[in-house]
Amino acid sequence: MIVVQKYGGTSVADTERIVRVAERVAQAKEAGHDVVVIVSAMGKTTDSLLRQAHEVSSVPPGRELDMLLTAGERISMALLAMAIHEQGLTARSFTGSQAGIITDSVHGKARILDITPGRITEALTGGHVVIVAGFQGVSRDSKDITTLGRGGSDTTAVALAAALRAEVCEIYTDVDGVYTADPRIVPNARRLDRLSHEEMLELAACGTKVLMVRSVEYARNHNVNVHVRSSFSYNDGTWVGAKEDTMEQAMISGVAHDSGEGKVVVRRVPDKPGVAARIFTALADAQINIDMIVQNVSADGTTDISFTLPLADGPRALQLLRGLSDEVGISDIVLDEQVGKVSLIGAGMKTHPGVAAAMFEALSEAGVNIEMISTSTIRISVVVRQQDVEIAVRAIHERFGLGADEKEPEA
Amino acid sequence: MIVVQKYGGTSVADTERIVRVAERVAQAKEAGHDVVVIVSAMGKTTDSLLRQAHEVSSVPPGRELDMLLTAGERISMALLAMAIHEQGLTARSFTGSQAGIITDSVHGKARILDITPGRITEALTGGHVVIVAGFQGVSRDSKDITTLGRGGSDTTAVALAAALRAEVCEIYTDVDGVYTADPRIVPNARRLDRLSHEEMLELAACGTKVLMVRSVEYARNHNVNVHVRSSFSYNDGTWVGAKEDTMEQAMISGVAHDSGEGKVVVRRVPDKPGVAARIFTALADAQINIDMIVQNVSADGTTDISFTLPLADGPRALQLLRGLSDEVGISDIVLDEQVGKVSLIGAGMKTHPGVAAAMFEALSEAGVNIEMISTSTIRISVVVRQQDVEIAVRAIHERFGLGADEKEPEA
Repeated sequence: MIVVQKYGGTSVADTERIVRVAERVAQAKEAGHDVVVIVSAMGKTTDSLLRQAHEVSSVPPGRELDMLLTAGERISMALLAMAIHEQGLTARSFTGSQAGIITDSVHGKARILDITPGRITEALTGGHVVIVAGFQGVSRDSKDITTLGRGGSDTTAVALAAALRAEVCEIYTDVDGVYTADPRIVPNARRLDRLSHEEMLELAACGTKVLMVRSVEYARNHNVNVHVRSSFSYNDGTWVGAKEDTMEQAMISGVAHDSGEGKVVVRRVPDKPGVAARIFTALADAQINIDMIVQNVSADGTTDISFTLPLADGPRALQLLRGLSDEVGISDIVLDEQVGKVSLIGAGMKTHPGVAAAMFEALSEAGVNIEMISTSTIRISVVVRQQDVEIAVRAIHERFGLGADEKEPEA
Repeated sequence: MIVVQKYGGTSVADTERIVRVAERVAQAKEAGHDVVVIVSAMGKTTDSLLRQAHEVSSVPPGRELDMLLTAGERISMALLAMAIHEQGLTARSFTGSQAGIITDSVHGKARILDITPGRITEALTGGHVVIVAGFQGVSRDSKDITTLGRGGSDTTAVALAAALRAEVCEIYTDVDGVYTADPRIVPNARRLDRLSHEEMLELAACGTKVLMVRSVEYARNHNVNVHVRSSFSYNDGTWVGAKEDTMEQAMISGVAHDSGEGKVVVRRVPDKPGVAARIFTALADAQINIDMIVQNVSADGTTDISFTLPLADGPRALQLLRGLSDEVGISDIVLDEQVGKVSLIGAGMKTHPGVAAAMFEALSEAGVNIEMISTSTIRISVVVRQQDVEIAVRAIHERFGLGADEKEPEA
């Protein structure tokens, strides 16, 4: 049985912690598993390398930036391999390229195209613990080193777990699982034992930071069991996607929030075919990821279109839209950076009417005004004032009885 | 015309110096050369990585140590590539493996078996400056990352210069060339304009630190022109191996010294066939590199054998020889760590009788006692007391008129 374990930057922050990780790996190996470990760069290494890059270059070329940053995992994986040897086992470390992580050529946010893990399976057969550098791969076309972008180590882990048909992909982090809400905001938030891939995907997309969206997508598409747990304890964490038929589907999983988005409102857009398409094509061409889109009903031949997007992309989106104003006949464009998004997620909600109503009622009672609403079959998201985000999270969390020692009420 | 430039750790110690190197590279490129740059790790990076290795491991496995240390050049080469982009040129960095540096599998001191520089020539044809990580390669058999040992970046540079048929291999360092003696000992020591490969080889083997022996061997075997020069000035340094027929052969090139060796004396060895062979086979099997060997004429059926070896290997050699004492009938073994070696090197000395006599006379006049002597066609070495080394160097340097503003006397 193959177990994939991924350790993030805080879990390998210094040589002392690397020794702790080695002990944990040794335990898994001694329990009879074939162990494949994916590591991130140590602590602040990536930030420090980035700083040096900007000392020598105003716009560091992507190919060289990837070459630079991949030194980080190279260091942590070699040190971990040594620490595992010190435990009396043998270990072999592999770069992304050596591990067969084949990607496209988009430096800085490459996508995995294929995995050819021949050297990994060979090393496992030889009885070695295998350590693989997270976050990195090699371009199929140019043979250049690539990186998968922030959080890419999670994706490496899930992708290898899929390719190796691992029993589980354990994601070790500094928290002990996925919670019904951010415990810093909701003190009685409860750790979730199980989640479906879809629920985790919505949570991650709505601001829950524990797993990156891309790694969850990959896990869903390849049906990989993910176990999110703490590298500081031996307790079970949260299982994502475990295929248990008897798994009881909770109506609501949790409340996520995200204060990293801004809202753009385009008023008095001519209400005729093709205008919305023109606007969002322009934004997509500029690689701006739009999140929620809301269009109001038409009045006097015009309509209002609002959408949310990452705060960092706000000024560029505004510039683009102003460039279009003559062409599509819009003039009133506003960027609002003081917003936040609060989302309620639960695979069971689609069969329970009244969830949305209960959520809006809770917000109303807490005095929180709703500015935008969007829904999927397992999610309801609202945009509110940024200063209302925490109030909203607490109100919804309490309304649905998600905390510890609380019972879920009927919706 | 291809120019290979190698920059050592002090030349790329921080991002500021990396920018200086980029400016120098840009000048060579703008002068119309195809430029291939070999870099070492920045300043103390290698030492810092080694320290971390020893924090997690008592005996770091060689494969993983090489994986770890090669992160150092990865960082410096990517930063240099960025800095060169900033100069308005394009640059592509390659690891040893990507550059086609194929080695054997001896981690920590791998030897280059072959160079397949396809990606380098392709990048040069594309008009890019090429940057290659020094000190590293990839094993032909295991495909694992290897390192060439201390000073290996010089070897990388010379080997690539040979494979690419470069016009010159420029070794940039923190001194401006090879001197007739160490200027810290002999203030009027003179920078040498030209040296043959053989002279440089003897100088390096006898303690001159500017170039590593292996890189000079490689340069001699492949007839590579090496230019040793300072990265802090634009003056010419010392040319090694330039093929000028009109080059006047100086009788004496310089005086080298080495205080890193110890002397072992084995007294009253039975004077019969096979004894010396038994002793030196045992030492060779233990990978101990013997330098000078002197055996005196026999007296009363026994003889004395003395040899020098790296100080670090002294205790182990002593232990080995004591283990042999019953078998070969020796009992009196002494390790003397307080010795030093002083060597006079010059390709012209073989055709000038009296050089040895003049050297011994100078030592005698300076009150320096000679303990061992060994010679080659272009070198005379003596072992003296360690506290006499500097006196000996100065006396010989002066006797042969090697300093600036001095004329060479007739020997």
